[in-house]
Amino acid sequence: MDEVKVIEIKRSVFAENDRDADVLRKELKEKGVYLLNLMSSPGSGKTTTLIRTVNLLKDRFRIAVMEADIDGDVDAVKIREATGIESIQLHTGGMCHLDAGMTRQGLDNLHLEDFDLVVLENVGNLVCPAEFDTGSCRNAIILSVPEGDDKPLKYPLMFSVCDVVVINKTDVMPYFDFDLEKCKEHIRMRNPKAKVIPICARTGEGVEAFADWLAEEITNWKQTR
Amino acid sequence: MDEVKVIEIKRSVFAENDRDADVLRKELKEKGVYLLNLMSSPGSGKTTTLIRTVNLLKDRFRIAVMEADIDGDVDAVKIREATGIESIQLHTGGMCHLDAGMTRQGLDNLHLEDFDLVVLENVGNLVCPAEFDTGSCRNAIILSVPEGDDKPLKYPLMFSVCDVVVINKTDVMPYFDFDLEKCKEHIRMRNPKAKVIPICARTGEGVEAFADWLAEEITNWKQTR
Repeated sequence: MDEVKVIEIKRSVFAENDRDADVLRKELKEKGVYLLNLMSSPGSGKTTTLIRTVNLLKDRFRIAVMEADIDGDVDAVKIREATGIESIQLHTGGMCHLDAGMTRQGLDNLHLEDFDLVVLENVGNLVCPAEFDTGSCRNAIILSVPEGDDKPLKYPLMFSVCDVVVINKTDVMPYFDFDLEKCKEHIRMRNPKAKVIPICARTGEGVEAFADWLAEEITNWKQTR
Repeated sequence: MDEVKVIEIKRSVFAENDRDADVLRKELKEKGVYLLNLMSSPGSGKTTTLIRTVNLLKDRFRIAVMEADIDGDVDAVKIREATGIESIQLHTGGMCHLDAGMTRQGLDNLHLEDFDLVVLENVGNLVCPAEFDTGSCRNAIILSVPEGDDKPLKYPLMFSVCDVVVINKTDVMPYFDFDLEKCKEHIRMRNPKAKVIPICARTGEGVEAFADWLAEEITNWKQTR
């Protein structure tokens, strides 16, 4: 297999990210490419969740993944080896988030005509990525059980900009003080509309519900084209 | 008990943070106050580790804690209730890190003459806090087992600016693919001098080694005054 493509992302030249994000969203709509922005803390299980989800959806949709990291390319390689789909690595050069201009730099390295769904795996960080609209159709966030059920209280913006919260690592719930109902309540405080989906990416439990949500989103979005 | 003090931190006015940090470090040295900057991802166990450590050291040193969070005051309250020491909450107003000027704003709310050690619990984030010298004597970082042993590869700057890496939640090691030796190797790649201390803050195992390290640091630092 070829080496994965590694793209060094530069700081955006657009001053107004919100406007730039809207432009990008419109362009993607015209091309029929649904962009999902996946965010979380470091080590919440974004890559493992993505592998499971892609394997459930890859027969229905043509999927590519952009892995954003400060350094390394382990995740892009892992995704490609475990799913066989196109996966590229974006290096942010120390930057803690991706904005729309940076996302576009990544997309420029994909043949967009070949894909229905592109997933952007954002930098592991509960603060900065929430501040920048990437141009995505939807924002998904993964919160893992070991991080604690209080995170929506401490990182309010992240939980208010997300459309779906995936609660990962439910298999280790017995070993942590994590109250799922309390966590749902905290999420609702920040964002009454966010869908909450508990999963265990390691075993695959619950991932189908997330894949179903995403498939329905893409289908509805395509219909309103 | 009184309510904990909550301080709304403003953006720093100093353009040159490195210089400002050096000034602050010198001022603290003159006052005999050792400042520890404690960093980690969200939910790695900073507060629980701090409570254990403070309870081991509070008879030898006069300690205060500054809890930095975007919102909420649960951690400052928790620290005070579990240790009885002075604890204040810093609100960063959405900002993802503290620099030296912001740290100073927090310190201005403490009677520094009354303390030997002030611990700054930084915002939960493996990216941005690493970029800003807070004026601390030492940087400690907590990496918890569920986050994965590959984090030093993905967050290079954080692991290169730290003096000590505390590996927390060792009790759940059997449930995660975490290789302690591999993790130590990754840390050494970034920072050959960093001390690595495995602990379990929940049960208290290993915390004594961290407290001993800190006590020795403070004692040596006081002697070179």
